[in-house]
Amino acid sequence: MKVCRSFVGGEWFAAEAAEAGLVFNPSLGEVIAEVPLGGGELVDQAVRSAHEAFPGWWETPAVDRANVLFRYKALLEKHVDELALSISTEHGKTIPEARGDIRRGIQMVEYACGAPALLMGESLENVARGIDCDSIRQPLGVCVGITPFNFPAMVPLWMFPLALACGNTFILKPSEKVPLTAIRLVELLAEAGLPPGVLNLIHGGRACVDALLTHPLVRAISFVGSTPVARHIFETGTHHGKRVQAAGGAKNFILLMPDATVNETVRGLTEAAFGCAGERCMSGSTAIAIGDAAKHLLPDLVNVAKSMRVGPTFNDPSSQMGPVITAQHRDRVNELIGVGAAEGARVLADGRSVKVAGAPKGFYVGPTILDEIHSDMTVAREEIFGPVLNVYRMDDLDSAIELANKSAYGNGAAIFTNSGRAAREFKHRIRAGMVGINVGVPAAMAFFPFSGWNESFFGDLHLQGREGVAFYTQQKVTTSRWFAPGEGDVWAR
Amino acid sequence: MKVCRSFVGGEWFAAEAAEAGLVFNPSLGEVIAEVPLGGGELVDQAVRSAHEAFPGWWETPAVDRANVLFRYKALLEKHVDELALSISTEHGKTIPEARGDIRRGIQMVEYACGAPALLMGESLENVARGIDCDSIRQPLGVCVGITPFNFPAMVPLWMFPLALACGNTFILKPSEKVPLTAIRLVELLAEAGLPPGVLNLIHGGRACVDALLTHPLVRAISFVGSTPVARHIFETGTHHGKRVQAAGGAKNFILLMPDATVNETVRGLTEAAFGCAGERCMSGSTAIAIGDAAKHLLPDLVNVAKSMRVGPTFNDPSSQMGPVITAQHRDRVNELIGVGAAEGARVLADGRSVKVAGAPKGFYVGPTILDEIHSDMTVAREEIFGPVLNVYRMDDLDSAIELANKSAYGNGAAIFTNSGRAAREFKHRIRAGMVGINVGVPAAMAFFPFSGWNESFFGDLHLQGREGVAFYTQQKVTTSRWFAPGEGDVWAR
Amino acid sequence: MKVCRSFVGGEWFAAEAAEAGLVFNPSLGEVIAEVPLGGGELVDQAVRSAHEAFPGWWETPAVDRANVLFRYKALLEKHVDELALSISTEHGKTIPEARGDIRRGIQMVEYACGAPALLMGESLENVARGIDCDSIRQPLGVCVGITPFNFPAMVPLWMFPLALACGNTFILKPSEKVPLTAIRLVELLAEAGLPPGVLNLIHGGRACVDALLTHPLVRAISFVGSTPVARHIFETGTHHGKRVQAAGGAKNFILLMPDATVNETVRGLTEAAFGCAGERCMSGSTAIAIGDAAKHLLPDLVNVAKSMRVGPTFNDPSSQMGPVITAQHRDRVNELIGVGAAEGARVLADGRSVKVAGAPKGFYVGPTILDEIHSDMTVAREEIFGPVLNVYRMDDLDSAIELANKSAYGNGAAIFTNSGRAAREFKHRIRAGMVGINVGVPAAMAFFPFSGWNESFFGDLHLQGREGVAFYTQQKVTTSRWFAPGEGDVWAR
Amino acid sequence: MKVCRSFVGGEWFAAEAAEAGLVFNPSLGEVIAEVPLGGGELVDQAVRSAHEAFPGWWETPAVDRANVLFRYKALLEKHVDELALSISTEHGKTIPEARGDIRRGIQMVEYACGAPALLMGESLENVARGIDCDSIRQPLGVCVGITPFNFPAMVPLWMFPLALACGNTFILKPSEKVPLTAIRLVELLAEAGLPPGVLNLIHGGRACVDALLTHPLVRAISFVGSTPVARHIFETGTHHGKRVQAAGGAKNFILLMPDATVNETVRGLTEAAFGCAGERCMSGSTAIAIGDAAKHLLPDLVNVAKSMRVGPTFNDPSSQMGPVITAQHRDRVNELIGVGAAEGARVLADGRSVKVAGAPKGFYVGPTILDEIHSDMTVAREEIFGPVLNVYRMDDLDSAIELANKSAYGNGAAIFTNSGRAAREFKHRIRAGMVGINVGVPAAMAFFPFSGWNESFFGDLHLQGREGVAFYTQQKVTTSRWFAPGEGDVWAR
Repeated sequence: MKVCRSFVGGEWFAAEAAEAGLVFNPSLGEVIAEVPLGGGELVDQAVRSAHEAFPGWWETPAVDRANVLFRYKALLEKHVDELALSISTEHGKTIPEARGDIRRGIQMVEYACGAPALLMGESLENVARGIDCDSIRQPLGVCVGITPFNFPAMVPLWMFPLALACGNTFILKPSEKVPLTAIRLVELLAEAGLPPGVLNLIHGGRACVDALLTHPLVRAISFVGSTPVARHIFETGTHHGKRVQAAGGAKNFILLMPDATVNETVRGLTEAAFGCAGERCMSGSTAIAIGDAAKHLLPDLVNVAKSMRVGPTFNDPSSQMGPVITAQHRDRVNELIGVGAAEGARVLADGRSVKVAGAPKGFYVGPTILDEIHSDMTVAREEIFGPVLNVYRMDDLDSAIELANKSAYGNGAAIFTNSGRAAREFKHRIRAGMVGINVGVPAAMAFFPFSGWNESFFGDLHLQGREGVAFYTQQKVTTSRWFAPGEGDVWAR
Repeated sequence: MKVCRSFVGGEWFAAEAAEAGLVFNPSLGEVIAEVPLGGGELVDQAVRSAHEAFPGWWETPAVDRANVLFRYKALLEKHVDELALSISTEHGKTIPEARGDIRRGIQMVEYACGAPALLMGESLENVARGIDCDSIRQPLGVCVGITPFNFPAMVPLWMFPLALACGNTFILKPSEKVPLTAIRLVELLAEAGLPPGVLNLIHGGRACVDALLTHPLVRAISFVGSTPVARHIFETGTHHGKRVQAAGGAKNFILLMPDATVNETVRGLTEAAFGCAGERCMSGSTAIAIGDAAKHLLPDLVNVAKSMRVGPTFNDPSSQMGPVITAQHRDRVNELIGVGAAEGARVLADGRSVKVAGAPKGFYVGPTILDEIHSDMTVAREEIFGPVLNVYRMDDLDSAIELANKSAYGNGAAIFTNSGRAAREFKHRIRAGMVGINVGVPAAMAFFPFSGWNESFFGDLHLQGREGVAFYTQQKVTTSRWFAPGEGDVWAR
Repeated sequence: MKVCRSFVGGEWFAAEAAEAGLVFNPSLGEVIAEVPLGGGELVDQAVRSAHEAFPGWWETPAVDRANVLFRYKALLEKHVDELALSISTEHGKTIPEARGDIRRGIQMVEYACGAPALLMGESLENVARGIDCDSIRQPLGVCVGITPFNFPAMVPLWMFPLALACGNTFILKPSEKVPLTAIRLVELLAEAGLPPGVLNLIHGGRACVDALLTHPLVRAISFVGSTPVARHIFETGTHHGKRVQAAGGAKNFILLMPDATVNETVRGLTEAAFGCAGERCMSGSTAIAIGDAAKHLLPDLVNVAKSMRVGPTFNDPSSQMGPVITAQHRDRVNELIGVGAAEGARVLADGRSVKVAGAPKGFYVGPTILDEIHSDMTVAREEIFGPVLNVYRMDDLDSAIELANKSAYGNGAAIFTNSGRAAREFKHRIRAGMVGINVGVPAAMAFFPFSGWNESFFGDLHLQGREGVAFYTQQKVTTSRWFAPGEGDVWAR
Repeated sequence: MKVCRSFVGGEWFAAEAAEAGLVFNPSLGEVIAEVPLGGGELVDQAVRSAHEAFPGWWETPAVDRANVLFRYKALLEKHVDELALSISTEHGKTIPEARGDIRRGIQMVEYACGAPALLMGESLENVARGIDCDSIRQPLGVCVGITPFNFPAMVPLWMFPLALACGNTFILKPSEKVPLTAIRLVELLAEAGLPPGVLNLIHGGRACVDALLTHPLVRAISFVGSTPVARHIFETGTHHGKRVQAAGGAKNFILLMPDATVNETVRGLTEAAFGCAGERCMSGSTAIAIGDAAKHLLPDLVNVAKSMRVGPTFNDPSSQMGPVITAQHRDRVNELIGVGAAEGARVLADGRSVKVAGAPKGFYVGPTILDEIHSDMTVAREEIFGPVLNVYRMDDLDSAIELANKSAYGNGAAIFTNSGRAAREFKHRIRAGMVGINVGVPAAMAFFPFSGWNESFFGDLHLQGREGVAFYTQQKVTTSRWFAPGEGDVWAR
């Protein structure tokens, strides 16, 4: 069986490891690779490699660092079909979804290509008579990225291109469930001409993560995953003196106003709830139908959900939705749907019963709609991370905002309406960092921060955009004056 | 005896408290006030007051919030003599130093007056066809400032003016050693027209701090103090879901090049080492004399140190240096000097023997210079926070930078030289956030961040400048599109 | 009779002049002061004064320059009643309008107080190995402001506070029709502590303007007035090597959608068309009623127009609209209304017949509404600059945008609607720099540029906001490296 | 003979023209191509093509526009050898200089790839209660670039990549002396996937330029050339309502301090004075030797000048300096050297006598040094634009700055010194936009503006950097509020 290699100091090798994980093709439920789970020794090797590569990479002008990324972008685009197939195979999302995964990631490479402009500090002369002041942004040193299974290309690409553009060196530890795409991403960057040691790739589980979080030479940690792990990463990392940005889970609300345009809203909601089989921290997993909205929208929505083609993604372009990531996760989602029904939700569409011909062992759950949700239900509190849409019904916008604002999370929130005023009120008052107006998944563009609020994010500086640049750099402020030198000095003659 | 009052919800009152602290005039060693040390109940009262005032203050346009600060600046300037006397009396620094303390603080008020320009988000239309995106900066809610004894005016003014300008409400807990100036600062802001509850003032010790760090309605904590406490504040605060910026101690290096202009360097070094009796996180407490520099500079420096007039500050304008903050601190500084001598340092000037006529109980230590320091000495490792200058001797710039870069801290570092190249190398390579070129104390101007590195700072976003604005706000990114509405809609006809 | 004095080099004096203008109280039609119209000699005196004051003012740190403006703001606020009366008396706008005039101007003073943050250049180290680069913003030198009659306080305050904050010195030549308020504005800034020569005030007509435009020591000209004069100012000034920003006239469109909220729209439109008697370059002088909008809105609008109380403003708070600036202008407006009627416009409200009891010689025109306008009418082409609202009727949004986009001007444009989509389309496609969504007069806030397009503006950098800062400064970009010095140099040992 | 084609609307064709110019290989003095000089008809065709392509290109999201530029960069790099040969052949600069020409140009393409981040406007909510404000940057429409002979690749690439990135369409009119490289630049951008009409290329002389300057559909003109032409372009263009940036000539000073490092200074000065045969608006054509500097530096400098290998560049890599652009220009340079000698300059190295074996008809002038220059000499006043270095001698820095500041020009100025203070004084006080500290040719990096001052630039917004972005866009500021709609509206229920 294929064994996933690590990449340290410019060398690929199969790490020795006491334990190993299995990589599945979830569309088929079959194992496709084995991934050795490294620990402290592998971590130390990778960190030292990155630490040694740092001074040379830092002194490389930003323009030259960016040039590696320009070549990288071209290589990623050249290999987009291959990468999309890799994502679809190990993760299960459809090929179009996988291409979106890559495209969003490439946009971060493009953004990082602007490093010289992004790294600008500020300057002011004569802050006092004869005294000048400026700030510069310097890199931190060795940075680490720990990434989740749900976006095998995009999330890693949120991290290392910008970190490298800023002059840092990097260690990527991808999800052990989807290591294959990450390997290819790293190979292509090496091909683009990145010097050895500047980017390193290691595989591992909790032991590996904890070794990274505590290694004295690691300066910063970027993480995307679930909220409990994000909290652990943040607390452990900061306790050990590292800068940490840790994005967690969510429970995003979509408000449906009675004046919303029906067909577009149904389309947007379907994509938000069932896209990537619901395994997105920006998925729109909770709808609030306001006033007559349910009457206008729900029948069409249920029809669409029931008619979606669920099936293998890597080899069947007609599949509209793929499997979830593991058998265990499928079982948990199914169980939660059952709990929802038991607690009183009306099951308008039931994905538990989905059958996929020709892929009997695949990890499938079909599109599910639970209506008449109340906030004390289990499904209202827990992040399901599957293709399950909860539907609340409320009388007015104010109550809906109030409900959404009680959420412990705050990644995203959206509203569908034609009213300028409803949109402005929602935007102003909703307690979430990413807001959509007639956009079900208001995901960040590379040049804006992915601004999770509340327990959806731990840290001060988010991924992407100028906050991303700020995260990967530290400012140095210099105040200078020059005295008249003594006798014999040239200038004063 | 005078009892320090608290200010909550627009009302001044003497808090009930089980314990109380004593406020001294350190120039005389006499008690001048008593400060009740509040606990959880007082904290809860203040937080609730700030929480209730938040919605109204947030909705107040930035232009109007700034107007309160414009009036505040004028009031601070009108009362500058009174405030300087207050600082000098309860802290012991000289009146000119106290005026500098206030002036720096006022500059933050001035900076905060620019709130509308500082709060700007970004906008881009057509991020995709027909889709627009923008970011806005919204306030966090209830913020807290916990401030140290050494800058009774400046450090509080680093915090609440900017926090309020950004739309937050605030609770100030000043050092229980210097509460009197803080009270006056708050009175003047109330006089400037701040609505009740927007700024609150409470006094307390550790119990009070811990209640603030854990209160569920507190959203952010700004702290300046020692490194161990800063670390505690950061870890406790972030564990309870708060954003934290915590500035700690330092051990700042000043490099003396052989080509430095003698008289200006001696002046700069004296001010850096002995200004405010060395009780500054930006004090230049460690000099590295490179090559012949010691020969050129040390004789004059020792003369100046020995001839400085140490004495009461609040009533004697001829005093050039005042006392340290407490008798205990004086004893600790004296003890550390002794340890230094015992471990092999040459005591070129000895402040332990200082006698101040007419103030026999004052907490005085005279200017002290310890030469021939080695990095394994106790005085080389510990922050002394008194008027004690350590002097290393080294052969060249490279070794000096290497030594300085081993420090656990990283607030500031300075070099005295006439060489453009030495200055550039130093600026580029030194691992400290605030760099001085022929400036002994490269303190932040309000419009640049006070950018401590390493264990001199915990958090990502520093006080002052644009990082300060980023700290007190959270970004919200909105993506919007508008569909063609259905039949009967007006616009499309 | 009162004679208007000039202010040069810190001295007030009555300039000798061959000609003089008369200042009227237009509410009464009576002369209230005489203004000597200076020429080349006075201009040369003022320019030399400003030129001599420049080096000292430039070297004054931005923080200190801003401090004069902080005091100025306080003085303006203290004298707001007096200034409002002055404006109302010499211009004729109502006291509330006059207060708005001042308040907007004060906001520019507030913005200019943020000079240190606004003047920041950029910096980047290692643009190539060992080479650093930064930019700084330096002042230009002597700048000139030539201001119109319609905002006696606001427009001068758009100019000199920011110019001075940037380190320039300045000569203000206000409209000879409203010199009294300008004199008071300058007196107050001198009182705030501005050094002599930094701001100078001279009065004059065309000869004075031409002398300013051609004087070799003048570096920049800011102008607000009519389009033909703006064009002349721009061409003459740039031909003589000066930087010029010249804001001209406009013909602003307001689109009324059928779904607009009636009462608010009528209110907004009334204010846009008749506020300041229509003498604003941002007035909403042309409405386009789309679909049923005319039916919903026009009856109320006509009622409001007919019932507005026209009368003296400086002494009668019940007046809702004051006179226009001169008898000649009144006659021209009345004549244009007549031409409109003759060319086929329906006169729904006719201001020509207005009679004001107790002020028989005042220069009054009442609120006028001309319906069924076509684009080939005289009133559709010419800027009327009086209380005359043209009304077009069109079938849909697209046609309305197309019509508005044919205008030679482009200061502002507004739409009244409840539709998010109509608003977005309008904002995206309309060819005007200042856009209002349910805001009839989308005037610039100080911190955004007043961004006139097309023939409403000549130059690249607008007044107000960051463009204003860019106008009053020139960037200097420095690239530096430092070689290893030869033998005997200190640093390299 | 090869005939240069034009490119309009995506089609290449040989324009019909009454006149034609000749393209030489100046290394050999031989004609290599003919270029038809188009007039009004060709201009109109190109402008209409660009005008029609504008709406589609504007609506193309910035991310997608940038993607064409990403591909363009890769193509330019792939063809760099071919382009360098083209430049060397038609212009005469050496291959390494030609590669530098391209590399600098490519950096502007890289900068323009950051369009989404560069085009950001600003946003602020609640500028007043319930009122929000934002600014966006929109393209202008049809823009024109008119470029000089001396940088056949770099100057065109300063213009159209950024203009296109901002959403404009473009017409390039390159120098009729070097059209071949421009043609290749345009071919490669078409190959990169630019839609037809978005970039057009036409050839022509003065008639063509005047037709471009006056065409009603042209919105902006970028020009680089001599000062008299730049002034004409600016005045004619602005008179016809276009935005213009016009960079002109220069006479750049290089100050030599006695403490400068000798070998590096000689190297820097040689490169500044003789690089590209002195045909650069940033060439260091005037040295001021201060104090003993002449004694230290001149002997070596003369040696280097005399030993430079002058000869054909396109086919002989050993040539260190190539010819000037035309026989006429060679003759003019030679004549000016003679005038200099006649007026009293000491000719330390005389390039008039240069003989190049094997290229007898080439347009060569050798490195020339004129010492003991005085400011009233002809060579001190006129831009020579050839390999001629003037040397002044002065006593101190102050006098040297004073002399340099009397120049009518202000592109660049440099100082060679080891003194931090001399560098700071020079940077602060020199009246030139591009400053070099130990950098003889402080040319702009793409991400900083090329900030010519005085008569070296006409317009407000320079090429490159953020000023370049501002030039190619106009800001639109929107103020919005939303009323509570009336009965029956959905949102308010």
